[in-house]
Amino acid sequence: MKSKFIVIEGLEGAGKTTARDAVVEVLREQGIDDLVFTREPGGTPLAEQLRVLVKQGIDDEQVTDKAELLMLYAARVQLVENVIKPALARGAWVIGDRHDLSSQAYQGGGRGLDTQLMTTLRDAVLGEFRPDCTLYLDVTPEIGLQRARARGELDRIEQESLRFFERTRERYLALAAEDPTIITIDATQTLPQVTASIKAAVQRWLVGQTA
Amino acid sequence: MKSKFIVIEGLEGAGKTTARDAVVEVLREQGIDDLVFTREPGGTPLAEQLRVLVKQGIDDEQVTDKAELLMLYAARVQLVENVIKPALARGAWVIGDRHDLSSQAYQGGGRGLDTQLMTTLRDAVLGEFRPDCTLYLDVTPEIGLQRARARGELDRIEQESLRFFERTRERYLALAAEDPTIITIDATQTLPQVTASIKAAVQRWLVGQTA
Repeated sequence: MKSKFIVIEGLEGAGKTTARDAVVEVLREQGIDDLVFTREPGGTPLAEQLRVLVKQGIDDEQVTDKAELLMLYAARVQLVENVIKPALARGAWVIGDRHDLSSQAYQGGGRGLDTQLMTTLRDAVLGEFRPDCTLYLDVTPEIGLQRARARGELDRIEQESLRFFERTRERYLALAAEDPTIITIDATQTLPQVTASIKAAVQRWLVGQTA
Repeated sequence: MKSKFIVIEGLEGAGKTTARDAVVEVLREQGIDDLVFTREPGGTPLAEQLRVLVKQGIDDEQVTDKAELLMLYAARVQLVENVIKPALARGAWVIGDRHDLSSQAYQGGGRGLDTQLMTTLRDAVLGEFRPDCTLYLDVTPEIGLQRARARGELDRIEQESLRFFERTRERYLALAAEDPTIITIDATQTLPQVTASIKAAVQRWLVGQTA
């Protein structure tokens, strides 16, 4: 089977790390074990520097919504060109912790940036490049943030209001509804249930991949 | 007179610092002495961090043309929103060492990035915001680079090929020809001649500013 780019998406505390482990288990059962793991923003030296700037800001300077978006895309194009595309080209499968859908949901939905700006920028920067499959782990902001807080300190974006995360989730759900490559998983279930749902979803999706 | 944003543009070694001094002298003669100086990329804590990333890169990672452009725009929107617009709003004049025209010339012309991407990104990020006047100091790349080399080490962009700077200059000239707010100065003249040309140009321009 041709190598694929699988992305795991969702709010903070949705359970992305657990989901990744479940995906890896299913792939290994199928004999797919040349795997490359990415996270966004980040994954190259330059992209990791941009991650720090996006997540922490600098001094007390106000980070404008547009600068945040532009830095995220700068990091993304570095990761796609220098890591993801080369990995896929040599036959590895790539499992991404977040990708473009995060920008569409957080910056487009949460921040309320203009939808046309969002799609124009995506198409200008990424061209036709898209994940083969995205697992969107759907949780309410209340549940997600509770789990994230239990893990420790929240970064600049994680400190946004509940309403911000509600808008982000709404955008995730709206985009998932119109894109057949996005599989929505109910991540409010118990951990064993979520893991079982993810495994079943990935197994079904793999069966549908003929090339 | 309403405060204005004046930008000085040109290839490396075109003489932007000398030009700035000449502009300041003319403005002070007119009693305009609340001046704010900016440089791009840079001018805010975040934008200065981005300047380092653009100019030096990091490790041996290839900086893609698109990531370079996106970082430049992230830096620019921070500078415009956090420094230039507030300065103009309180009545100061702003003198910029480079602004958007540099991206149009270097990334659009020199790097050959798609013209529609360039204008789409500019309009999406900056809206209608434009300098009131741009002084473009025109030199051949041979003369400019000779002067820049005499000053010391060249950064990542300054190490580009002569052909890169020829394409950059061609784009500068083409854009200056179609934009009445850009004044082209022959910067291959002797230093006293260039200074005299700049002073005369700024004096003429000021006379035309009625509001």
